[in-house]
Amino acid sequence: MVEPLRFEDGALLVLDQRLLPAEERWLRCDSPAEVAECISTLAVRGAPAIGIAAAYGLALADDRAAAAALLRSTRPTAVNLVWALERVLAAPDPLARARELHRDQDEADRRLAELGAALFAPGDRALTHCNAGALATAGYGTAGGVLRAAWEQGRLEQVWVDETRPLLQGARLTTYELARAGIPYRLITDSSAGTLLARGMVERVVVGADRIAANGDVANKVGTYPLAVLAQRHGVPFYVAAPLSTVDPATPSGDAIPIEERDAGEVAPDQPALNLAFDVTPAELVTAIVTEAGVLEAPYEEAIAAVAGR
Amino acid sequence: MVEPLRFEDGALLVLDQRLLPAEERWLRCDSPAEVAECISTLAVRGAPAIGIAAAYGLALADDRAAAAALLRSTRPTAVNLVWALERVLAAPDPLARARELHRDQDEADRRLAELGAALFAPGDRALTHCNAGALATAGYGTAGGVLRAAWEQGRLEQVWVDETRPLLQGARLTTYELARAGIPYRLITDSSAGTLLARGMVERVVVGADRIAANGDVANKVGTYPLAVLAQRHGVPFYVAAPLSTVDPATPSGDAIPIEERDAGEVAPDQPALNLAFDVTPAELVTAIVTEAGVLEAPYEEAIAAVAGR
Repeated sequence: MVEPLRFEDGALLVLDQRLLPAEERWLRCDSPAEVAECISTLAVRGAPAIGIAAAYGLALADDRAAAAALLRSTRPTAVNLVWALERVLAAPDPLARARELHRDQDEADRRLAELGAALFAPGDRALTHCNAGALATAGYGTAGGVLRAAWEQGRLEQVWVDETRPLLQGARLTTYELARAGIPYRLITDSSAGTLLARGMVERVVVGADRIAANGDVANKVGTYPLAVLAQRHGVPFYVAAPLSTVDPATPSGDAIPIEERDAGEVAPDQPALNLAFDVTPAELVTAIVTEAGVLEAPYEEAIAAVAGR
Repeated sequence: MVEPLRFEDGALLVLDQRLLPAEERWLRCDSPAEVAECISTLAVRGAPAIGIAAAYGLALADDRAAAAALLRSTRPTAVNLVWALERVLAAPDPLARARELHRDQDEADRRLAELGAALFAPGDRALTHCNAGALATAGYGTAGGVLRAAWEQGRLEQVWVDETRPLLQGARLTTYELARAGIPYRLITDSSAGTLLARGMVERVVVGADRIAANGDVANKVGTYPLAVLAQRHGVPFYVAAPLSTVDPATPSGDAIPIEERDAGEVAPDQPALNLAFDVTPAELVTAIVTEAGVLEAPYEEAIAAVAGR
């Protein structure tokens, strides 16, 4: 399993995900500023992984309050970032706490992966968007972990991978992880998912999340919402796999989730473009939210209140 | 207005759309085989434009039956190709007929553009997918023509352009045409359209078509179907703009339209990929089909029967 983060010799080593799969280059971070730069520029990405990276970044700080503010400002949508920073700020030994969060993430991933895999049946073809595997969590993976566990249990035939424009995390990262795990996959353009669903070529859709509101609305990589609408139209279950650290009881609904707008140049050079990095899927389109504390179903308001903050 | 095809000095000159907007290079075709190659490889693309190109290709033939079979085999989805070949095969003077089809296309485009523009209201922001402008028709454009006419009449504020993976006809060709016409636009990833529709940032969706079945089902560039589903969900009108040569009364419904599967390498090198070039939008999602013979609305079976073959 690929590890995107390592803490060694007093520094955080970050596998540069912008270069994958062509090149495996490690960036050494000796300061919170260097970690913040890795998060802003997407050398490390994925809601849980940026939380863990920020935790280690804070453990490298002299001025922890300033470092926390800097790290928090890097990306607005994933709540895991704030969640992890709060936990390290409150800890007597920041590095020990960062290492603990890292281990906990892997355990949560493995638990939710088992729970999610149990929803699959032999022969299922699953469709996923972006990357929510080990690279995105610094653990076993959320949606990617569910796919891996389903594959190991013989409940998965094949994965359809949305390429995920503009930065191609599906085409570059998810395919890289699936190939390493020996899981059969086929890549598609993001626009093709509708036809696959209409033709009955997909039995499950499974994605990760960057923030889940108290009512079950889900922010995730842009393109998730159209997938959810299409899955519902064709009666295909739509699962969100995420640890409890992604659930934010303080955000009442999707309307309150800040959606990051990134540089137009990521879409095309020298063009006026609108580059929304995330979208919001209303809870009504979500068949289940798979967490380490159980598989949540509607009504989400109650289901989330029962497990949040555990 | 950009012209993708010119017949000069006994040869068909094809503007190589694979190189746009970086380079304007013309390919000279002296034989049907060279025209067929230009169609297969997408040097010329767009349902009406490949029909016109094939018509000129047939006019260059010694053995017209063999040339027609070759040209017909290049691409399966657009019915305009077959339509144009049949008309040239039946003509006493093939080149004169090809030139006539070319002129007719421009006239049809201009008529349907006027009819489509009348559906717009000042301040409207329109979203379009792929390219259905002058480059796609060798005339005034279908969806692109509607946008141009709406702009000239002060009924259009801005265009949202889907980049249209994998070959980026939106990002490369539609933006090129809009910029030349001075129409304000912003490029988005195909996955972003759902958020724009959900946020009320789009008043009209308008696309072209490669084939319209007798029941009103529409084949068009892959990604059109998800757009139509999202437009319906958010109560935004979804218009298809196409000449009658794109309407195929012999195809009963979308199920009978052959959907071209192109090389996986167009999506990504060295990856197992499924590259469906088109999708089918069921008639129930189409607000109106704008043709040169009028704006058709449901029930489409009757509306199409009334104008088809005119």
